[in-house]
Amino acid sequence: MHTQINNTDPVQKAAEAFVQYRKKSAEEKALFLEEIAEQILALGDELIRTACSETNLPEGRIMGERGRTIGQLKAFAAMLREGSWLEASIDTAIPDRAPVPKPDIRKMMVPLGPVVVFGASNFPLAFSTAGGDTASAFAAGCTVIVKAHSAHPKTSVLVADAIRKAVEKSGMPDGIFQHVSGGRHLGESLVTHPKTAAVGFTGSTSGGRALFDMAASRKNPIPVFAEMGSINPVIILPGTLEKNTAALATSYAASISLSVGQFCTNPGLLLAIDGPGIDGFREALSNEFSKLSKGKMLYDRIHESFVQNREKVLANTSVTLIHHSEEAVGELEVTSTMAEVSGSDFLQQQFLQEEIFGPYALLVVCKNEEELISAWKSVSGQLTTSIMGTDQDFSNYSSLVDDAIQIAGRINFNMVPTGVEVCPSMVHGGPYPATTDSRFTAVGLTAVKRWIRPVCFQNAPDHLLPVELKNKNEKKIWRLVNSELTQRDI
Amino acid sequence: MHTQINNTDPVQKAAEAFVQYRKKSAEEKALFLEEIAEQILALGDELIRTACSETNLPEGRIMGERGRTIGQLKAFAAMLREGSWLEASIDTAIPDRAPVPKPDIRKMMVPLGPVVVFGASNFPLAFSTAGGDTASAFAAGCTVIVKAHSAHPKTSVLVADAIRKAVEKSGMPDGIFQHVSGGRHLGESLVTHPKTAAVGFTGSTSGGRALFDMAASRKNPIPVFAEMGSINPVIILPGTLEKNTAALATSYAASISLSVGQFCTNPGLLLAIDGPGIDGFREALSNEFSKLSKGKMLYDRIHESFVQNREKVLANTSVTLIHHSEEAVGELEVTSTMAEVSGSDFLQQQFLQEEIFGPYALLVVCKNEEELISAWKSVSGQLTTSIMGTDQDFSNYSSLVDDAIQIAGRINFNMVPTGVEVCPSMVHGGPYPATTDSRFTAVGLTAVKRWIRPVCFQNAPDHLLPVELKNKNEKKIWRLVNSELTQRDI
Repeated sequence: MHTQINNTDPVQKAAEAFVQYRKKSAEEKALFLEEIAEQILALGDELIRTACSETNLPEGRIMGERGRTIGQLKAFAAMLREGSWLEASIDTAIPDRAPVPKPDIRKMMVPLGPVVVFGASNFPLAFSTAGGDTASAFAAGCTVIVKAHSAHPKTSVLVADAIRKAVEKSGMPDGIFQHVSGGRHLGESLVTHPKTAAVGFTGSTSGGRALFDMAASRKNPIPVFAEMGSINPVIILPGTLEKNTAALATSYAASISLSVGQFCTNPGLLLAIDGPGIDGFREALSNEFSKLSKGKMLYDRIHESFVQNREKVLANTSVTLIHHSEEAVGELEVTSTMAEVSGSDFLQQQFLQEEIFGPYALLVVCKNEEELISAWKSVSGQLTTSIMGTDQDFSNYSSLVDDAIQIAGRINFNMVPTGVEVCPSMVHGGPYPATTDSRFTAVGLTAVKRWIRPVCFQNAPDHLLPVELKNKNEKKIWRLVNSELTQRDI
Repeated sequence: MHTQINNTDPVQKAAEAFVQYRKKSAEEKALFLEEIAEQILALGDELIRTACSETNLPEGRIMGERGRTIGQLKAFAAMLREGSWLEASIDTAIPDRAPVPKPDIRKMMVPLGPVVVFGASNFPLAFSTAGGDTASAFAAGCTVIVKAHSAHPKTSVLVADAIRKAVEKSGMPDGIFQHVSGGRHLGESLVTHPKTAAVGFTGSTSGGRALFDMAASRKNPIPVFAEMGSINPVIILPGTLEKNTAALATSYAASISLSVGQFCTNPGLLLAIDGPGIDGFREALSNEFSKLSKGKMLYDRIHESFVQNREKVLANTSVTLIHHSEEAVGELEVTSTMAEVSGSDFLQQQFLQEEIFGPYALLVVCKNEEELISAWKSVSGQLTTSIMGTDQDFSNYSSLVDDAIQIAGRINFNMVPTGVEVCPSMVHGGPYPATTDSRFTAVGLTAVKRWIRPVCFQNAPDHLLPVELKNKNEKKIWRLVNSELTQRDI
């Protein structure tokens, strides 16, 4: 069976290291994650400089992203020590139950195996080499193979070196982390390798879907969590449109153009009703967009796609411009564009729903409430959707929340969707094509659930049980004992 | 967009009912589940007689299964009232956090949408029309379309009628439950319907894989939880083989032949080392098997497969017989068979690992410890694996537990794997091909996780939040508030 031993085979190496790593204690894994954070910090300015130069993102943004990357690693370390993520559950035996005795059964989560991570181009640190997928997979007890993103190869190598130093300092097995570079063929060989247990991906819908299809057609299918396209529709209710016209335009222009529009939570679609406020909103948007400066995109492929996709939409006769600059731009540079379409034209033209990754958004002006709701509900699965409204709006449109739940993984109220908080309650996921599996999230501590599975032990001698399931609750973790949540010993 | 309105389209009807059902309170859903249990009980003897006559299973077994079916429904009702399955999580705002304020974020689980259920032939009640998949999907807040199993059509109709009565009595929307009959083409149309959100299946590997492939190749892929083949390997350690020879043979012969071997947890593979005890074990098994009476299988297709597959294995020159009766059998009847193969022959012949659904098991006699472990680890993903040993065995073979975790979803110690306890700690799942997704279970309360996804609300006004996430914890459910598990209000 699939045991081709090959020293240059990263998945085989990861599978061998998995045998060791999965047995490490929660404390050992936590210390390892914290050591990665230390080593990334120790890269100092070189990391910041390299990432800035490879991505065209400003220093402040990269500094913030480093903070987030380190924060994630530390949060997963804390999660490991706290222990409730293991969903430990114990049902004790009832030997005299009739007609048959009830056996002792104890359950907890265990890691899946080697995880292949394809990082994002737009988050060179927080969603890349030591980003959320890698951190959550390590926390799960999985070993990791990162395929470096070609948009920031030097940044990726620096971070990989930091992880390797942490591996060494923490006395972890060498094959626990591997960093490989190559093209599509390498990606395919990693995803189809018999010993790969799961895949994490952040990027385009076509890229994510290709990996999903490869994984699903394996002899033994494996889970792929791909976080893909999203246009993050924002529904602007009439009351707030009229009352907060300028403030809405200001905050949305800023959100749409933030980091040259290169966020998966970028609000690419604004929906509103033709009525009081709409002219002022259009004018205010135009004014705000005219103040935006041009910006350099991440790399050539993203730049090319943006220019092409924007051209395609603007060539459509139903689409009018709110603001579009013809300003001369340098290499990789783009300006922000705000366009407009009627609700009925939007509903008739499916391609207007496609994500245009970059500083672009479409305002859909609907003739009435019914069309507004139809246009909103016509979009495919999303990472986020936002509802902008006054208290009066919310009481007029109370069923919007129920509709929103069907559309997206995160529902914002009177906030822009960019800026993803890393905390236990965060959901960064959503129905397809936002992700390939809406039951999981890529951000927040529950991101670990993508890489774990439950195992139960029936009638096991106490000394053979994992420490988290023994009678004595040594780590004082929360466990469900005979259906009661407790930190007590048995 | 996919809004073909058709009164005879069950998925469309289920999608419309979903809009109503998902808004029902936990208490309303709990009462509905309990009402289904009542209505099934109210079918009385007719249900028992019909199921016995359609499945050839004895009355005691069907009575027990009815109890389990009702118990499941009630357990999910209790889960709904208790509330922690929603994984409610609240991170309150920190408006003065620098550099940016922290918004209020609150998360909980919501239902996926219409679920298509393909019931099992071997559990006409507990894994069929109102079985675990249906009960867990209803608990999740999903609507359900059951494709009746052709092996027990009348039983299925009776149970469907009971569910319909419960729908009516509970004031639930009509389309919440639908019961359809038909062939492969109907199944395909249900799985590929744009509004189907998920699929539950219990049956053969080929059947489950076909549904998985259909779902994965949809424009919008949906999750399929298929519980499929398993041979449930049992590793018998030398000490117990020598010491408990007769008891082992007795309990395993009974487990292998229970319900004419038609359990997915049937121990179809016993692994032991050639040494003291093996001759006695072989002899005791032969003796036990000779005492077993012939039995009638569930229906023609299963009977045919069993006879064919058993013939195929017995025709193999490396396989010898421990017990095989040539007794005359009537329609659908079979006798129990115990065969034997050497460890090396087992390792070389992949087809010996294939499940033979029915009263058949293979004893693999290994030349030494190394071969024993190799043979055991060579099997593909399993629902269960069992370790039989004395205290001394367990200290000699301590790494077995870690190996077992990689093989199966449930690990038994000194017990037979048949008899699946329905409790929070139960895992009835495992790596492919035991199931299509090892991260879930088909039995136990966490079976509900197959049909739910997380949604978070950011900066939501309290009155727009679901009751479970409001400041006031009216239902006193367990919630993670700022990383602390509590039942308190905010």
